[in-house]
Amino acid sequence: MVESAAAEHLFLRACRRQPVPRTPVWMMRQAGRYLPRYRATRERAGGFLAMCKTPELACEVTLQPIDELGFDAAILFSDILVPIEGMGFSIDFNPAPVLANPVTTAADVARLRVPDPSESVPYVLDAVRMIRRALAGRVPLIGFCGAPFTLACYAIEGRGSKTWSTAKRLMMSEPAVGHALLDKLARTQAAYLEAQVAAGAEAVQLFDSWAGALSVHDFRELALRYARQVIELLRASPTWRGGGVPIIYFVNGCAPYLDDLPTSGADVIGVDWRVDLAEVRRRVGDLAVQGNLDPHCLYMEPEPLRQRVAEVLLAAGDAPGHIFNLGHGLEPDMDPERVRLVVDAVRELSAR
Amino acid sequence: MVESAAAEHLFLRACRRQPVPRTPVWMMRQAGRYLPRYRATRERAGGFLAMCKTPELACEVTLQPIDELGFDAAILFSDILVPIEGMGFSIDFNPAPVLANPVTTAADVARLRVPDPSESVPYVLDAVRMIRRALAGRVPLIGFCGAPFTLACYAIEGRGSKTWSTAKRLMMSEPAVGHALLDKLARTQAAYLEAQVAAGAEAVQLFDSWAGALSVHDFRELALRYARQVIELLRASPTWRGGGVPIIYFVNGCAPYLDDLPTSGADVIGVDWRVDLAEVRRRVGDLAVQGNLDPHCLYMEPEPLRQRVAEVLLAAGDAPGHIFNLGHGLEPDMDPERVRLVVDAVRELSAR
Repeated sequence: MVESAAAEHLFLRACRRQPVPRTPVWMMRQAGRYLPRYRATRERAGGFLAMCKTPELACEVTLQPIDELGFDAAILFSDILVPIEGMGFSIDFNPAPVLANPVTTAADVARLRVPDPSESVPYVLDAVRMIRRALAGRVPLIGFCGAPFTLACYAIEGRGSKTWSTAKRLMMSEPAVGHALLDKLARTQAAYLEAQVAAGAEAVQLFDSWAGALSVHDFRELALRYARQVIELLRASPTWRGGGVPIIYFVNGCAPYLDDLPTSGADVIGVDWRVDLAEVRRRVGDLAVQGNLDPHCLYMEPEPLRQRVAEVLLAAGDAPGHIFNLGHGLEPDMDPERVRLVVDAVRELSAR
Repeated sequence: MVESAAAEHLFLRACRRQPVPRTPVWMMRQAGRYLPRYRATRERAGGFLAMCKTPELACEVTLQPIDELGFDAAILFSDILVPIEGMGFSIDFNPAPVLANPVTTAADVARLRVPDPSESVPYVLDAVRMIRRALAGRVPLIGFCGAPFTLACYAIEGRGSKTWSTAKRLMMSEPAVGHALLDKLARTQAAYLEAQVAAGAEAVQLFDSWAGALSVHDFRELALRYARQVIELLRASPTWRGGGVPIIYFVNGCAPYLDDLPTSGADVIGVDWRVDLAEVRRRVGDLAVQGNLDPHCLYMEPEPLRQRVAEVLLAAGDAPGHIFNLGHGLEPDMDPERVRLVVDAVRELSAR
C-alpha cells in the first residue's frame, strides 16, 4: 500500500513541478490491442465503438494496463472522434476512423451543433465516474480530447491522411470556413473536457496529433490559437475546479513550435520523440514536460531499449516536472513484456 | 537574352553563397501533373515509368516548366526509386510506387547488387545528356537521388507509409540488417550521382523525404550517416569535378536536426516548410539554404499567397546563399497560374 499511495500522487505532483521520489510513467494508447486481455474484451464487445459507448467495458480496458503493468496514471478509454458525433458527424471505425459526411462548405459548418456533453456523450461521463470508483485512488485518471486543428483535419478529410492536403487546402483557400469550423470544435471540446472534469477526471490532455503538418505561421493561427481557446474556456468555466486539474497539451511533430507552446496556457507540454527533452526543457520554461521515447524503440532488444530509456531520463534532467511517456501511441504488434521493461526501467533509473 | 544569361548563373551562384541580383527559384516536382502539357506527354507515353525510361520524354517534361514558367534551374525528370531497380527490386507505379519484393531478412539484403549505372540506368544518363543539349545553357540542370534512409523505407515497406513503422521495426530489431541495407544503398546512390555528374548534371540533390520519422539519435545513425557516406564517396570519386557541382541535402521534417545538418558535407541544406528560414540560417552556419514555402499556400488567393512569399524572403534575409523553393513538391491539383505568381513574386520582391 505504500507504493500505491505514493504512486497516487506522483503523476499529479510531476504535472505541478513538485519534487517526486521517482519519475511517473504512463503511455499513450496504453489501453490497446497490444494487450491480449484488451483484444478479448474487444471481441466480446463486438468492436471499438461499442467499447467506447459501454461504460463497463471502457472502464474494464482503462484499468487493464494499470493492473497488469503498473502505470502511474490511467487514461480514459475512448477516441478523439467520439465527441464530434454529437456535432452532426456520422463516424465509423473499420478499424481506422471514417466520417461519412465530411465538411466541405460554409453551409456544412453552419449546420454543426455545439452539443451538451450530458446529452451527446453521457456514456463517456458514466465511464469516467465508473473508472474513478474502480481505481479507488490507486492512480489518477486522465481525461482527454482532440485539439481543434486535429479534429478539423478529420472533419474535412473524412479519414486519415499522410499530408492532410484536403484539409489544408480548404483552410488555405477558404479561411473563413476553416476558422468557423475550428471555433465550433474548440467550444465543443471545452464543454467536453469540462464535463469530464466534473465527472471526476483529475487531469486532461489535448491531443494535437496532426498539428505537425503546419508551418510555424499556420501552427499559430490554426492549431495553437484554438488549443488556447479550449484551455481558456475550460479555465473560465463555472465548474472548473481551480488549479487542481493539470492540462496537458500534446503536439505530435512539435519541434518547430517549441518557443510558442507555453502560450497555449497548458501546465504540461507533451512532446513527440523527435525532440531532445533537454532542449524542450530550455525552451518551454516553467512548464512540466511529458515524453518522449520513440515507440518504435519497443521493438529493440532489452539492453539497447533500456539504454534508450536512460537517455530520455538523462535528457529530462533532475529538475522537477517530467512525466515519462512515449512520443506517440503504442502499436498493436508491440510486446507487453517490452512495455513492462520500460515501466520498470523508468522506476529503477529515475529513483532519487 | 540578358535575363537568360543572368538566370543561367543565379542558381549556381546562390549555391556557392555568391552575391546575386535576385533570389533564384525552382520547385520540387516542377515537372509534374499540375501542368497540362505534362499530362499530355504522360498519356502519350503510357505511364510514369515509361516517361522515366524514354530519354526524349524525360527531356521533354524536364524542359516544360522552364519554358512555361521560367524557373532558374531544371531538375532531371525521374523518380528516386528508378536506380534501385538495378539492385534487384521489382518496382511499379500505380500511381504510387509499389515494390514487389521488399527486403525482410539479412539474406534479402545480401542478394542486392550495387549496380553500375551505365548498365542499370543508361536511359537516365542519356536523358541527362539530352537535357543539357536542349537547355543550351539557359539554366543549370540538377541531378538527384533518394538518400539511403528514405530509399530503405521503401525497400523494407514496399510502399509508402504514414509512419514507416515496418521499416523502423526492422532497423530497430535487427540493426545489422538495416545498416547493411543502408550501406548498399549509399554505395549505389553515390555511383548513380557520380554518373549523372559525368553525364552533365551541374548540381545534385539528395532527397531524404522520410528522415523526419526519426528521433535525433536515430537520424544521426540511420539517415545523416548514410547521406554523408554518399557525399563523401561522391567527392572522393575519380571523375568528381572538384567543387564545381554543388550538393544539396534536402530533409523533409528537418526541424529537430538543424544543428546536425552541416556535418552531412553538403553545400546547400534544403528544408521543408515547418522551420523558420532565419533560424535555419543561424543554425546551419556557412551553408546555403533552399526553401521553404508550404506548397499548400498555392491554394491561397493571390494576395495572401504573395504575402507568404514575402515572408519566406524576409526570413531568408539579405545574406547570399538562398535558393527559393517549396518545402515539398507541387501537387497535381495546383494551378499553374499560382505557380507563376510565386515565380514572379520571388523575382520582383527579391530584386536587389
